[in-house]
Amino acid sequence: MTNGMGTPPQTTPEDLGIGSVQAERSGRFLTADGRFNTRRLGLRGWGSLSPFHLMLSLNWWMFFALVLALFVLTNLVFAVLYVLCGADALQMTTEHPIDNTFWKAFFFSIETLSTIGYGHIAPTTMAAHLVSSVEAFTGLLGVALITGVLFARFSRPNTHILWSKNVIFAPYQGGEALMVRLTNGAYNELIELDVQIVLVFYEWVQGQKVRRFYPLKLERHEVEFFSLAWTLVHPLTPSSPLWGLTPQHMHEREIELMVILHATDDVLSQRVHARVSYTAEDFLWNVKFASMYVSNSHGAVTIDVRKLSDVEPVLK
Amino acid sequence: MTNGMGTPPQTTPEDLGIGSVQAERSGRFLTADGRFNTRRLGLRGWGSLSPFHLMLSLNWWMFFALVLALFVLTNLVFAVLYVLCGADALQMTTEHPIDNTFWKAFFFSIETLSTIGYGHIAPTTMAAHLVSSVEAFTGLLGVALITGVLFARFSRPNTHILWSKNVIFAPYQGGEALMVRLTNGAYNELIELDVQIVLVFYEWVQGQKVRRFYPLKLERHEVEFFSLAWTLVHPLTPSSPLWGLTPQHMHEREIELMVILHATDDVLSQRVHARVSYTAEDFLWNVKFASMYVSNSHGAVTIDVRKLSDVEPVLK
Amino acid sequence: MTNGMGTPPQTTPEDLGIGSVQAERSGRFLTADGRFNTRRLGLRGWGSLSPFHLMLSLNWWMFFALVLALFVLTNLVFAVLYVLCGADALQMTTEHPIDNTFWKAFFFSIETLSTIGYGHIAPTTMAAHLVSSVEAFTGLLGVALITGVLFARFSRPNTHILWSKNVIFAPYQGGEALMVRLTNGAYNELIELDVQIVLVFYEWVQGQKVRRFYPLKLERHEVEFFSLAWTLVHPLTPSSPLWGLTPQHMHEREIELMVILHATDDVLSQRVHARVSYTAEDFLWNVKFASMYVSNSHGAVTIDVRKLSDVEPVLK
Amino acid sequence: MTNGMGTPPQTTPEDLGIGSVQAERSGRFLTADGRFNTRRLGLRGWGSLSPFHLMLSLNWWMFFALVLALFVLTNLVFAVLYVLCGADALQMTTEHPIDNTFWKAFFFSIETLSTIGYGHIAPTTMAAHLVSSVEAFTGLLGVALITGVLFARFSRPNTHILWSKNVIFAPYQGGEALMVRLTNGAYNELIELDVQIVLVFYEWVQGQKVRRFYPLKLERHEVEFFSLAWTLVHPLTPSSPLWGLTPQHMHEREIELMVILHATDDVLSQRVHARVSYTAEDFLWNVKFASMYVSNSHGAVTIDVRKLSDVEPVLK
Repeated sequence: MTNGMGTPPQTTPEDLGIGSVQAERSGRFLTADGRFNTRRLGLRGWGSLSPFHLMLSLNWWMFFALVLALFVLTNLVFAVLYVLCGADALQMTTEHPIDNTFWKAFFFSIETLSTIGYGHIAPTTMAAHLVSSVEAFTGLLGVALITGVLFARFSRPNTHILWSKNVIFAPYQGGEALMVRLTNGAYNELIELDVQIVLVFYEWVQGQKVRRFYPLKLERHEVEFFSLAWTLVHPLTPSSPLWGLTPQHMHEREIELMVILHATDDVLSQRVHARVSYTAEDFLWNVKFASMYVSNSHGAVTIDVRKLSDVEPVLK
Repeated sequence: MTNGMGTPPQTTPEDLGIGSVQAERSGRFLTADGRFNTRRLGLRGWGSLSPFHLMLSLNWWMFFALVLALFVLTNLVFAVLYVLCGADALQMTTEHPIDNTFWKAFFFSIETLSTIGYGHIAPTTMAAHLVSSVEAFTGLLGVALITGVLFARFSRPNTHILWSKNVIFAPYQGGEALMVRLTNGAYNELIELDVQIVLVFYEWVQGQKVRRFYPLKLERHEVEFFSLAWTLVHPLTPSSPLWGLTPQHMHEREIELMVILHATDDVLSQRVHARVSYTAEDFLWNVKFASMYVSNSHGAVTIDVRKLSDVEPVLK
Repeated sequence: MTNGMGTPPQTTPEDLGIGSVQAERSGRFLTADGRFNTRRLGLRGWGSLSPFHLMLSLNWWMFFALVLALFVLTNLVFAVLYVLCGADALQMTTEHPIDNTFWKAFFFSIETLSTIGYGHIAPTTMAAHLVSSVEAFTGLLGVALITGVLFARFSRPNTHILWSKNVIFAPYQGGEALMVRLTNGAYNELIELDVQIVLVFYEWVQGQKVRRFYPLKLERHEVEFFSLAWTLVHPLTPSSPLWGLTPQHMHEREIELMVILHATDDVLSQRVHARVSYTAEDFLWNVKFASMYVSNSHGAVTIDVRKLSDVEPVLK
Repeated sequence: MTNGMGTPPQTTPEDLGIGSVQAERSGRFLTADGRFNTRRLGLRGWGSLSPFHLMLSLNWWMFFALVLALFVLTNLVFAVLYVLCGADALQMTTEHPIDNTFWKAFFFSIETLSTIGYGHIAPTTMAAHLVSSVEAFTGLLGVALITGVLFARFSRPNTHILWSKNVIFAPYQGGEALMVRLTNGAYNELIELDVQIVLVFYEWVQGQKVRRFYPLKLERHEVEFFSLAWTLVHPLTPSSPLWGLTPQHMHEREIELMVILHATDDVLSQRVHARVSYTAEDFLWNVKFASMYVSNSHGAVTIDVRKLSDVEPVLK
């Protein structure tokens, strides 16, 4: 798979008719943490809002709060329905029954929806039986839905790639290279990684400011495993689109460096994805990454991930 | 993966013996919305009808209606069985028991199948106990089945690719190119897209009308992400099977343009697929796609998907 | 992915030391319906017998019978435990309680394991409460297990590839080609298919009978979709290992033709696999496959899968 | 996918600035059974500890013990809450009620959490009803969680690759080749295998001891199926990094041979992975692998996996 944006043009002239982005449409494509900084207006309601995606995207606290809210709300609705069935609809057989009709209905609803059914509160009229039958069905579906969503949440890989804070220009084979360093911030192991870097900046073509996308050639774009850290290396050669660019150029051209990673979670056997984006102020010159290695502990090769962004000055 | 149809022959002569489609077998291969416009007669019942595929294919209203119908039907069957066990089979301990034997049995069945089991109706005879044991087992399996199907439905990617209404011939690099534009009509993000276009039309080979399949060479057939819109570009060169074709040729040859898209859902990490098909009346000449970009909102690059099919005339 | 067997050698001399199969180890590698005709002795119990694979491999009747058997067995075990708790361990509150201690215990067990819990039979002693607590836990795990297995069974693609009964040698581009025809015998749609054919036969190398594996070069080894039928074509050229082979040669050399198919289920987005194997008696000469196309029904291109293996004589 | 380590440098000079591993950071990269022998210090708590991965990694006994512990613990917590609601909070309707307040609360909790709800113990006060409502919700979530985890555990492929105990140097095509033999130790079938071998050892570059990684070229690195055994063969040619290495060299250079396998489980259609690592003491010279084939049983080609590591001396 080559790199590139879904749109707009890349290494082609700006008058392609394929939606070249004019200069006034500025703004970075990815946010610093790798989410897409784009919007699509005019999406129609049908087919577009997926409650399932929403439930997968919420964090765990929000998710449990949502499930709890749905649980309480559903029981409130059914409690009201039982109350509407009349005061005698539910009979309570314990010694000191709850006098409050609503609470009796609410607790009965919970015992029904959760399929507990102690039976110390029980329906007596046809209406109450019908409502409780509907609630029984609702409970079955609800448990099935929550089980499905929970499983989907659980089984999504817990990817947490850590990226170096800066993009650096460091000495490399007698010349220089652009470097980004990454490591795995989660306890899972990632294998079969491949990465690509796309450079975005403005160019003046025939007097017009046009945004261009360039894939950067990497010294190595795929590795088999990733148990320590990985430094991405793009050698600065005359054929590089970065050749001769000064920090000031980078600011003027609103440079953006997007890094896109694909990998396989070793435990779940699932493909995972990560992205990061850097802009002009994230670039450093005349430094190199400091070693992350620390003394072996128990014979294992060991790195300290807190040193991921550490750099050392390079003496010219 | 190259492009092509499962059958019939493609860039090979018509007398291959590999099932070339004769002229009288006309009809488009894909419907306009991308479903296969083909039929296979003679499929045997065994191994072919999958209730699971059916339950995945139904829309949500139909699906819930089907589940509800199965739930009611199962309870009706068990209610009848309880009635057959005799009037004393089920004892009701609430103050004003339901007189109607059927309804008592029906509500007892629901409380059993859903594993609620209030106990205010309870089996008393061996027969009733046996039936309720069978229903308990049925309930367990039923809940498991519905949970599985619901999860499978939920976890299927909610792909909703929007395609431009027309295939256009627009100016491109001093010449012309065939173009199709697409965008993502759902809120999920798609990555790792690849696309192919297959052209189908009739040719006269040795006096015989034969249907031919040609893959169209695209200026770019894969992109890494798809957060905005993507214009597919097939340059019209002498090597293109479309070179020199007039609108009238297209009608005579019953031209069909099939576009096949593969992508990965960014949240679910699953491969998704989409297809579309265009016929002669969907082609436009001397136009280009209008820009979809609108003023940036909150610094994000923004498009209006309602402009997907908008075209502008091209002045020669 | 190239083709080949996990072992033994393929296009390499027989004295590789990589486990060449001597002549006396005869027998086809795949059964006619595509299962591996191989055995591995000495597998240790640990790590090798997977109950999950077993439950996925059983047909539905066997599977339900197994689940039912486990359900009954578990309830029998717990019923015995309740009986061992003493006659007063379980109290029954309905008017005409079951006198038989075992049956009372058995039905109570079912109501507990299935989490129904009517409560008309209830534990009274500490021992009975403890046993029922264990059974409650067992029931929770059991439901979870069966739900998981059922979902896994349901979500496995229902692949049912139909293969032509014979391998034929038919006219092709002025010469001849080996052909196999296949179609989809299930209602699901398959896309992104790729296929390979491996030829296995004996050769005499330095006076020794050695089994050799040859991939056959196909005119087309992958197609994008498979809504009708697909004829695999291996042209008979001098570079083909089949060149010059007579029917008698095939029998003597115990020829086996293995066809291996990979595809993607369009609804489930899952990769599926199918295999078939042909031996000498399955080859036909001087025939070609008959057309499977029938009159269009409702404008759709239509085939009759019952004609898959139909051949017509070829006049020389 | 080429082979390589996530870090450090491979075929590049040691002063890359990309984290070359100095000589003092010794220790093998993979343990003998294929786990990563690396550590990452400084991982932050957030985002890194995944309970789901933990529950997938435990063996079955540990897993069930953990689930049981969680079940008992949750019930203890709720039992205490019910006790705190007061002595009258729970009413027991059986003839000989449990006098002990704690045990009554504990059993009631189990009947609630498991959604059994016999009702012979039932809440009477508002406080008890509220606690049981919370427990009902907890029970629903808990069942959903355990179902999800169990399914995930069950559906993970049961891969059990057996590797030959030794790496051998055996005769091959007039010269020698490095060989490793593997077979499938589980009853499932694996297809679409590909393998790579990476050699790691120290070199002295400009007076510095540097660790280097070399992929080894294999005579065959992928096979379509793996129903018997597979011998990996790396021919010893002058271009091999192993050319001319003596056993003593291997010890001095702390050689490590890592073998990485990817395959597809035929039943589950899932990608699986296996790794193994050999060090200097695992190498054997002047031997060849003994045949694993045994007399055909029922016409099937048969091997004895216990002979996987058997070697025979080679007479020079």
